[in-house]
This record gives sequence, structure tokens and C-alpha cells, in this order.
Amino acid sequence: MSLVVVGSVAYDGVETPHGKVDRMLGGACTYISLAASYFTHVKIVAVVGEDFHPEDHNLLESRGIDLAGLERVPGKTFFWAGVYSQDMNDRTTLTTDLNVFATFDPKLPEHYKDQPYVLLGNIQPALQRSVRQQMNATRLICGDTMNFWINDFREELLETIRHWDVLLINDSEARLLSGVSHLGRAAERILEMGPKVLIIKRGEYGAMLFHRGGYFSLPGYLLDQVFDPTGAGDCFAGGFMGYLAEQGVDPTQAGGMDSKLLGRAVVYGSVMGSFCCERFGVERFRSLTRKEIDQRFEEFRHFTSF
Amino acid sequence: MSLVVVGSVAYDGVETPHGKVDRMLGGACTYISLAASYFTHVKIVAVVGEDFHPEDHNLLESRGIDLAGLERVPGKTFFWAGVYSQDMNDRTTLTTDLNVFATFDPKLPEHYKDQPYVLLGNIQPALQRSVRQQMNATRLICGDTMNFWINDFREELLETIRHWDVLLINDSEARLLSGVSHLGRAAERILEMGPKVLIIKRGEYGAMLFHRGGYFSLPGYLLDQVFDPTGAGDCFAGGFMGYLAEQGVDPTQAGGMDSKLLGRAVVYGSVMGSFCCERFGVERFRSLTRKEIDQRFEEFRHFTSF
Repeated sequence: MSLVVVGSVAYDGVETPHGKVDRMLGGACTYISLAASYFTHVKIVAVVGEDFHPEDHNLLESRGIDLAGLERVPGKTFFWAGVYSQDMNDRTTLTTDLNVFATFDPKLPEHYKDQPYVLLGNIQPALQRSVRQQMNATRLICGDTMNFWINDFREELLETIRHWDVLLINDSEARLLSGVSHLGRAAERILEMGPKVLIIKRGEYGAMLFHRGGYFSLPGYLLDQVFDPTGAGDCFAGGFMGYLAEQGVDPTQAGGMDSKLLGRAVVYGSVMGSFCCERFGVERFRSLTRKEIDQRFEEFRHFTSF
Repeated sequence: MSLVVVGSVAYDGVETPHGKVDRMLGGACTYISLAASYFTHVKIVAVVGEDFHPEDHNLLESRGIDLAGLERVPGKTFFWAGVYSQDMNDRTTLTTDLNVFATFDPKLPEHYKDQPYVLLGNIQPALQRSVRQQMNATRLICGDTMNFWINDFREELLETIRHWDVLLINDSEARLLSGVSHLGRAAERILEMGPKVLIIKRGEYGAMLFHRGGYFSLPGYLLDQVFDPTGAGDCFAGGFMGYLAEQGVDPTQAGGMDSKLLGRAVVYGSVMGSFCCERFGVERFRSLTRKEIDQRFEEFRHFTSF
């Protein structure tokens, strides 16, 4: 019973008000799979170049992640660099070198195809669709996307998310996708596009989950210090789907998932996003324990109870 | 066992994307006392001019509000007019005619002075202090303020809030008052200034409450439509203090108030703020019932539970 994660494995250069790192392990697939690995077994599908460092390979392996789908090809690994604003609510991309990621064509190893849970990181909608088609049977599919695909690949994206169980986006993307500014009505429109569950991430303000049975809203965690928000949304996704996989939800019954179960999954997502921000890049996952995760989950319960 | 409310009673001209009203009942004292009147008996201290309309007097009276402290003097009632931005997160003041409010000097009727609860609307800090000094014994004092007093009357404001039990402000005011951008650390600083409880209102994103025992965070209510946000913060204050008064909290033990009780008060505050936005001005309070209030409280419990 594994979670299949598809997306980018990359090197990132990041500058925040708290420091600067020229090159460190990053990428949506990396963050998602590290976060999810605290809840369930993870199998990744991604591509790296010849420069991919054994230490980074070892970090993923040390979390029990199946790397059979991590293709290594001639060339360089995807490189992204960006700088965050003083309040870290905005970031400017300085460099995007797609490198080997430019021709990424996810191919699932045979033993991935019967797994019940799939998390599609933010990549080309056509590639996301191809992954779903390679799976053998009805799976619980959760996916992420972004403004670029919503604006420039709209039809392809709509055809792709039509088959998803869970769509994860942020509030501005929800407004862009639906064409509606009111979040509740935006959510209604998006649920009509196919997804059974919609999660709207709102950064420091928390997250909302909409499904046919109503909605759930969670405020953000008050972190002592946000060192680096890179990957927080991906860690949210990893915690959310990791928890659902751990709970063994029936992948054919995604529309009937219990509201409180979904709420707890949103809390675990928020917990993982919050830990991600505490250090640069994936650093926090070198020491993080499940006990700390469950403690923070209880903190959420405490500061939201009345 | 009443709540004494001090602040402005005014006429407002408001334009939002949903419409325009040239002149309607408004003012912090009005909104606070209407909201609080669903929970406890309210006595107001305010001033109006000769143009104050009997219908508006009757509305307040119909909610059982004691108007012995509502002074009527020669001249015109305070008039404010403003226009909201398309998303209603910003507003521009068009007119501020202080009129009789310019010389407002709150004088408490004798039978007000033994009441256990006081809510000081956003007025000159020196006037807020004078009200506290007119009270006979230790009372639970809750007060509001704004950027103008924080910037231009800082010393006077600090001397005033030093004696308050509860301070209610929004996030930008909390940052301005503390000089710290991180909300948690801003709250720590502000609690060192005297207040035992700090509430930070965050508009559509909800509210946070800080006290020595920790913090509570509540997401915002997803309103179908915000018609007019004028008065929402005051209604929050009225619901919050109204609920504490209804629960009969010991006014001498404000520092020891139970976290969950405070949490429920924040929820009732948010409930009252949300109803306020559903119609122009105070319109919603002409039909609102306690049953609807308790139903929305339960809705909050439902969409925040996990």
C-alpha cells in the first residue's frame, strides 16, 4: 500500500531574509515524498542528471522511499533559484534551468502500477494525465497545479483534473481557475469540474477544504520563525495524502471520505508545511520525528479548540 | 450585571460594490451595544445632536439598551462617510464631521458605576481613561483603539491600556503598537504593556487571542456575500464581551479566564461580526435572533472540528 509521487527533483538556490543557500536539494517530488514518508511507504517517479549527488540519493533512501522510478539521464538536474521578499509572501525567480527535466516523460515501473494512491506534483497537465493512464485500476488521485498551466494550458488542465479526486491549489489559483473571486463560490465551480475534494492553501492564514458535504477551515500555525517557505505547499500535500494513505482510505470511495478524516489530513498537511519552513530546504527532515509531528498535531487541536 | 459601552453614535454614509446609503445609523457604540444586547444587558455612554432620529433611539431601546447615558446636545450628530474598494479590504474616508462628538466628555450616570463590565470603543485614550476612573471598583475593562492613537497619542495610549484587561486591535495595529512584525512576538510585547488578553482581528482570515496561558486561533466565516463591512470589528467586540458578561466571569479575575471560555467568546465575536456584514449598516440587527446566533456558533464548531 504505497503512495506514488510524481514531480520534480531539483537543485534550488534560495535567498530569504534569514540567509542564502546557492545549491541544495529541492523540487516538488522531493518535498512531497519526504513529508509523506512519515505516514506511508512512498515510491517516486522523477528524473535527475549526472550531477545528482549520492548524499541526496541517500537522504531519500534513508526515509524508505522507493527510487526505482528515479531516472538518471545524461545532463544536469533541474535547477531553480529565487529570492523571497522581506515578509516572504512574494518571491522572484532568478533562474529556471529545466535541464533534464525539459524532456521528463514519467514512466512507471511495473510494481508501481497497482498502488492505491497517487500524488501528482505540479508538472505539465499532459504528463500528469499520462501517469494516471499508466496506473492499472481506480486509484485515489491527488494533484497540484499552478497559474502557468491554468492560464496557458487551460483546456488540457481541465481535461486532466476532471479525473482527479483531490485538487490542491492556493487561493489566487482557485480564483484564476474558477473566474470567481468569492472562495466559496470558486470552490463550488471547481468541484463541478471533476475533483471530489478541493484544498485551498492560504499560506500563513491556513487552509480550507471543500467537498460535497461542506467545508473545513484551519488557521495557520504561528511559527517562531519562517526561515524558508520553499516546499511548504508540497509538504502540505505530502502530509495530507500520506495521512489518508496511512488511514487506508478506500481509493474507489474518495467522494465519500468522512469530513473529520479529511480535516485531520488537512491538519497533518499543515503540520508538515510548518516544519518545512523551520529550516532551509529539506534540512528539517534530517532530524524530524513522527513524535514531533504528532505533538504539533495536538498543538493544532489545542489552539483551535473552544 | 450590565455591560457599560462607551463610544460614538453616528450617522454614516457608506458605499460598497453592492450599493450606497447616504445616511444611516452607525458608530462604534451603536454596533457594539446592538451586538452585545443579544447576550447581556447594555448601558451606553455617548452623545448625539438634535438631529438624532426617534426611530434610531427606538431601535436601541427595542434591544433593551439603557440610554440614560446617551446625552443629547445642541448641534449635529457625528457624521462619517466612506467608500470601500472592490474587494472591500480597503476603505477611503470621504467625510468626517465630528460635530457634537468633538467635545464628547463621557459622564457616567450613577447607576452605571457599579457595573462589572466595561467596553471602551475607539475614542481618545484620555476619555477612555476618564471612564475607567469614574467606575467605582475593579471592573473588567475591554478596549479598542486605532492607528491614529497609536501613532500620535502613544504615551497617553500606553498609560491607558496599562490598566485594561482586554485589548482588541487588528493585525496592522498590533504590529504598529509593538514595533514587531511577527504576530506572536508582537502579542508578547503587548501583553507586557498591561492587557491580560489581546485579541487580534484579521478580517476575512479570522481572529487570534493571546493570553499568558497561550493562544487561540479561529478562521474566518465564509459569508455568502459581504454587503458592508462597516461595524464588523465593533460587533466582534460586542459579541466577545457580551458573551463573557453572560457567562458572569469574575471581573477581578480577568487574568485567570479559562482558555476555552475565551475561545468561545472569540467565536461569538466572529459570529456577530459576520452577521453585521450581511446587510448595510445595522440592518441585520432588526431581524437577527439569538437562535440564528447560536446556529452560526454551531456552524463554526462544525467547520473547524477535526
